[in-house]
Amino acid sequence: MNAIQRIYFDNAATTALDPEVLEAMMPYLTEKFGNPSSNYSYGRETRMAVETARRSVAKILNAHPSEIFFTSGGTESSNTAIHAAIEDLGCSHVISSPLEHHAVLHTINYLQKSKNYTLSHVKLLDSGHVDLEDLETQLARSAKKTLVSLMHANNEIGNMLDIQAVGALCKKHNAIFHSDTVQTVGHFPFDLQNTFVHFITGSAHKFHGPKGVGILYVNEKIKVNPLIHGGAQERNMRAGTENVYGIVGFAKALERATANQDTETAFIKSIKLYTMQQLIKNIPGIQFNGDAYTKSLYTVLNVSFPKTKKSEMLLLNLDSECICVSGGSACTTGETSHVIRAMNKNSERIPVRFSFSKYNNQREVDFVIEKLKGMI
Amino acid sequence: MNAIQRIYFDNAATTALDPEVLEAMMPYLTEKFGNPSSNYSYGRETRMAVETARRSVAKILNAHPSEIFFTSGGTESSNTAIHAAIEDLGCSHVISSPLEHHAVLHTINYLQKSKNYTLSHVKLLDSGHVDLEDLETQLARSAKKTLVSLMHANNEIGNMLDIQAVGALCKKHNAIFHSDTVQTVGHFPFDLQNTFVHFITGSAHKFHGPKGVGILYVNEKIKVNPLIHGGAQERNMRAGTENVYGIVGFAKALERATANQDTETAFIKSIKLYTMQQLIKNIPGIQFNGDAYTKSLYTVLNVSFPKTKKSEMLLLNLDSECICVSGGSACTTGETSHVIRAMNKNSERIPVRFSFSKYNNQREVDFVIEKLKGMI
Repeated sequence: MNAIQRIYFDNAATTALDPEVLEAMMPYLTEKFGNPSSNYSYGRETRMAVETARRSVAKILNAHPSEIFFTSGGTESSNTAIHAAIEDLGCSHVISSPLEHHAVLHTINYLQKSKNYTLSHVKLLDSGHVDLEDLETQLARSAKKTLVSLMHANNEIGNMLDIQAVGALCKKHNAIFHSDTVQTVGHFPFDLQNTFVHFITGSAHKFHGPKGVGILYVNEKIKVNPLIHGGAQERNMRAGTENVYGIVGFAKALERATANQDTETAFIKSIKLYTMQQLIKNIPGIQFNGDAYTKSLYTVLNVSFPKTKKSEMLLLNLDSECICVSGGSACTTGETSHVIRAMNKNSERIPVRFSFSKYNNQREVDFVIEKLKGMI
Repeated sequence: MNAIQRIYFDNAATTALDPEVLEAMMPYLTEKFGNPSSNYSYGRETRMAVETARRSVAKILNAHPSEIFFTSGGTESSNTAIHAAIEDLGCSHVISSPLEHHAVLHTINYLQKSKNYTLSHVKLLDSGHVDLEDLETQLARSAKKTLVSLMHANNEIGNMLDIQAVGALCKKHNAIFHSDTVQTVGHFPFDLQNTFVHFITGSAHKFHGPKGVGILYVNEKIKVNPLIHGGAQERNMRAGTENVYGIVGFAKALERATANQDTETAFIKSIKLYTMQQLIKNIPGIQFNGDAYTKSLYTVLNVSFPKTKKSEMLLLNLDSECICVSGGSACTTGETSHVIRAMNKNSERIPVRFSFSKYNNQREVDFVIEKLKGMI
């Protein structure tokens, strides 16, 4: 994290594990290794850890513990939700957006091969936001049971969906609502008992928790089948021996991330705003992709650099200065960002995503700006 | 592991994390947290760790690195394999056994709801072994493309399948062969380049590695789709940010488990045999479920106790002495074992599974036998 060693501005890809989270995980990586499904007291010790974690997560999201299922991560969670909506809840129309993460986009596209449903995309506004009027029109027009799958915060441009407004539309039109909330769980105050949504997803490594563990929230009003079948773990909703230390880490990371959420949000937001100011001041022709100013996640800033002979090598040059930023999602490395393409943005410009965490500071921004000035 | 504190004889459920494995994982739980799919050098550092792990695992199993895919565990791996065989390889007949782990049994049963295939079970010999003649008869009779799904070592009774013989039958009859090898990867010398098998599975926590990480081996001669869609991770075969420390832990645990496999196998086998001898000597009416003596995994011993007023409380009484053993699979807690039922074993007897590891010793066996004498 030292500016001279490395500047990590790619926190939407993954975050550093919080040392206090690791500390909470350690007993379950050492002496407390029992299988939570084992019927003796030693198994019950880890069972208790899993259930305590579940209660903690549920409380933070204002959900019921029975609505929280631990999975291997956000991607598995979204796959499970989409599969269940189509297979178990009878959705034969899916409304989504071309800006979704591939965990949603590719799943919806793939399942069309074997399942019977129509797929439509909502219109996008110039800002990259979902056109809610178009969504309502499509919902009103649809005679079929519909799944709406729209992400809460876009992982590349940071645009935030009005999840309450979309939930209200889904409620009005009796639709199933899945929201990929991988960028917002741990970064946004959820109140699920007062939000009309059937499925949301979370991934611990996006908020200083461990990789390889996530949650799927399933609203208690619906009953669905698992994606992964086998043992009776997670009340028959997710088979496989529980990743106990991962689950403990998820809960601890969420507790840590939300304990001082207002302060941390304000701090990270100030770094994002400072970066924007400094970029505008120092880099001619700078633009921002998406709605960077208003309905935007405080962690993500997508910068559009003018294309010059030098700027084509921008990511490479930043890397050689040990500055970690990305051209798009880490999950789509090597491709042109489908998000930027879908927004019809000028392909003659260079998109770079900066994403911040509580471990960043203004000094790092100054260092990056200084370097950028020579790279454009 | 101290005899006075706790005796852990449930290593088929899960195992203690080897401290050297944890040590190998620690850098990836602390400073090396980069996303392996990120395109900068910091991401390439974790990418390298993942690919080094893959090469190591492949080498130990005598497979090609491109045949090894990291997953969240054995259950996900078996789900992926079965799904792929039916969906992508056109299998419309599945031959399996009633003794399979629920990760296979339940998956095969569930998929029948939406996929079109017939399901048949092989006959079992009295020993609990698969009747290979019946398997050949069924394969010869089947006009459809067939998936054979048979586990390598049964997790409850330890019976081992002759994987080479079954592979040869599948080859002869052009069948797809999936073997749930969760109890044998890390415990058995695989030579996959010289074994006719399309899919095998492994789970790190069965051989002193971390929970929440496994492998799926997919023979390079077949091309299948993922179960979990999204990002391009694992060469498009398993979406989701890689669980880097888990993957590193899987490889290290497999390296450790196989480095001195002969010695450790002999040691654990001697504990199993000693337990059998002492049980026969000290507990009247003792029997063993399955083929405990010959084609049997050296870690697992399923003991059939005579039913007495006292023995009905056996598991509870063992637990109160801090002795960890199980009535069946941890994944099926609370149910009567489907394995014991399928073998038509006398339900008037009490089945108890003892499963051993390198961390056990004869002194622990002596202690348990002494306690058992008072419990029957």
